[in-house]
Amino acid sequence: MTMQELRERGLALRRRIFGEATVQARMDAAGGFGAPLQAMVNAWGYGEVWSRPGLALGTRSLAALAMTAAINRPGEFRVHMRGALANGCTPEEIREVLLMVALYAGIPAANEAHKMAHEILVEQGKAF
Amino acid sequence: MTMQELRERGLALRRRIFGEATVQARMDAAGGFGAPLQAMVNAWGYGEVWSRPGLALGTRSLAALAMTAAINRPGEFRVHMRGALANGCTPEEIREVLLMVALYAGIPAANEAHKMAHEILVEQGKAF
Amino acid sequence: MTMQELRERGLALRRRIFGEATVQARMDAAGGFGAPLQAMVNAWGYGEVWSRPGLALGTRSLAALAMTAAINRPGEFRVHMRGALANGCTPEEIREVLLMVALYAGIPAANEAHKMAHEILVEQGKAF
Amino acid sequence: MTMQELRERGLALRRRIFGEATVQARMDAAGGFGAPLQAMVNAWGYGEVWSRPGLALGTRSLAALAMTAAINRPGEFRVHMRGALANGCTPEEIREVLLMVALYAGIPAANEAHKMAHEILVEQGKAF
Amino acid sequence: MTMQELRERGLALRRRIFGEATVQARMDAAGGFGAPLQAMVNAWGYGEVWSRPGLALGTRSLAALAMTAAINRPGEFRVHMRGALANGCTPEEIREVLLMVALYAGIPAANEAHKMAHEILVEQGKAF
Amino acid sequence: MTMQELRERGLALRRRIFGEATVQARMDAAGGFGAPLQAMVNAWGYGEVWSRPGLALGTRSLAALAMTAAINRPGEFRVHMRGALANGCTPEEIREVLLMVALYAGIPAANEAHKMAHEILVEQGKAF
Repeated sequence: MTMQELRERGLALRRRIFGEATVQARMDAAGGFGAPLQAMVNAWGYGEVWSRPGLALGTRSLAALAMTAAINRPGEFRVHMRGALANGCTPEEIREVLLMVALYAGIPAANEAHKMAHEILVEQGKAF
Repeated sequence: MTMQELRERGLALRRRIFGEATVQARMDAAGGFGAPLQAMVNAWGYGEVWSRPGLALGTRSLAALAMTAAINRPGEFRVHMRGALANGCTPEEIREVLLMVALYAGIPAANEAHKMAHEILVEQGKAF
Repeated sequence: MTMQELRERGLALRRRIFGEATVQARMDAAGGFGAPLQAMVNAWGYGEVWSRPGLALGTRSLAALAMTAAINRPGEFRVHMRGALANGCTPEEIREVLLMVALYAGIPAANEAHKMAHEILVEQGKAF
Repeated sequence: MTMQELRERGLALRRRIFGEATVQARMDAAGGFGAPLQAMVNAWGYGEVWSRPGLALGTRSLAALAMTAAINRPGEFRVHMRGALANGCTPEEIREVLLMVALYAGIPAANEAHKMAHEILVEQGKAF
Repeated sequence: MTMQELRERGLALRRRIFGEATVQARMDAAGGFGAPLQAMVNAWGYGEVWSRPGLALGTRSLAALAMTAAINRPGEFRVHMRGALANGCTPEEIREVLLMVALYAGIPAANEAHKMAHEILVEQGKAF
Repeated sequence: MTMQELRERGLALRRRIFGEATVQARMDAAGGFGAPLQAMVNAWGYGEVWSRPGLALGTRSLAALAMTAAINRPGEFRVHMRGALANGCTPEEIREVLLMVALYAGIPAANEAHKMAHEILVEQGKAF
């Protein structure tokens, strides 16, 4: 496989999960300066890792939520919260993972993640 | 002791430290989605750990400030800054802990914490 | 439910996942000094969070592996590696999660986690 | 050398890199509460470490960018982004360091850093 | 005050807390390569921050334990565990802080800290 | 360029920096389980990022040391310490970066890094 094909495969999966407009906005967010990183995200992030068989997309989303909550990356957490819902995770499953964040990374990490998750559920009319 | 009693004990202590309106706002911040986490915060955080004898509430506040500054949780730091003042810590004692943050977690962590602490001192008419 | 019942429920689940000898060794590792923390681990960790319905034990294990790899807790990672296998996760599924660690928390975190996971697979005759 | 001389040497270097107005704003940001920390930043940060011979100021800036991106300190990253440009680093060199952040601290850290760096390049008419 | 005086004041305090042999071993641990860092530790760490009035040495030790447990620095945690006991903290007070680590930085951090603390209590004949 | 070519380019660079035996040992450390991660390290890490023009290999090593010290990855730090020396960094330049670690990530991180660096300098007969 060529690198060009890998990047294209990744970009296609990324668009399928997050939607074309969102992906375009993120790809443009750091202009030409950000182009090499975006090429890597498409190739390695989505073309290679996320495209591997052997783990459902929803489970991948739950792992991404757990990690971005635990290591304090709110911008990325919000992206993967929308991705988790698009990949079929229910709000209840997401909540179970966020309660585990409290155990492993502490209550402040879990609390922040709950607030961000709830905001996105409100946006999408799925809050309760 | 039942879980219900533990949660009630915790909520009562939490309200005593932070004030009823603040606690209510935090409990509502993630809606029904956040209810299980809030129940854990009340029971485990305040009903169990913060309610233990053997360490003054003010010393607990200083430890919470040190940790939330060091691990980069600004939302939680602000909460515990207000709690520290309510628990009788002086601005000078708080500052001593934040200067130690510079040694153990680096100057950027200490700097951010100083700015947040100062904002809250300004709010409460205690800045200097 | 009383706290005593919660702790017992948690301890029973913990023993079922990790085996009685392992749990006992961990409960004894910090002597009487560690008893209050172990009581919290049993009650909150296993009695409350891990006992909740709504997420399979194997998926909980994958989330615990992702987080402990990302936040650099090798002792805990090894515990949950054994737990993941006991909860029915395949080595291949675990590997998929650890490849995601490279994306979200960096290659050094993923590399360290791969080495620990492989050691435990060797121990259990499941390496390849 | 006296402490007073060390602080003055540091403040002079700090002003030379970041500009007098920026330094003043940062020194005032936490009022009298922040004065001891600012004295330490001047003395230890700039008077001692940054003033040492043996490493070019531009290389020091690249190391500061790598670390503040990796450990998630956006306020400090922005300061050192401006400092890196003042110290003669090109946008292309900065980008190379930020691509390395993806490898060592994960894509979310690199992504956030790229966005902040691009914003400052836009401000200074150096974006591409 | 001159830098030389500050370093001497710090070294004297450091020896008083940790004992002369321990301090010498730590000062020699990285040879001539480590001399500038050790000079900074003496001057800045102990001569400046730890020497400030306004917070008891024992409370400083508790803050250092909370932070080094939370940010995962076991070598430093062990040093400050011995320092805390030398500064008059009781094992019970130390334990209270370590239980707070579970809330703010997660159970794995607290668990690791408990084990290290217990080992040092055993060494000193203070375990229970 | 194909993925296969990229992996080969990366592996060649990796061997040139760290030596064939070291690279082989690291590639074998997690057996077949680790093969996909190693392929990514070769392709993405060394074939793509480290192979980019625009930043000297020695400067890349300094950035890798700064980050792995700051985020607490001792295994990886040791690897890049050897790489830094192979890429022509002097012990004095490396030390300057490690003193900056104290400012940005705290003294414990810098202290640990100094000890590891010194051990490797001793091994290579370059200690002083």
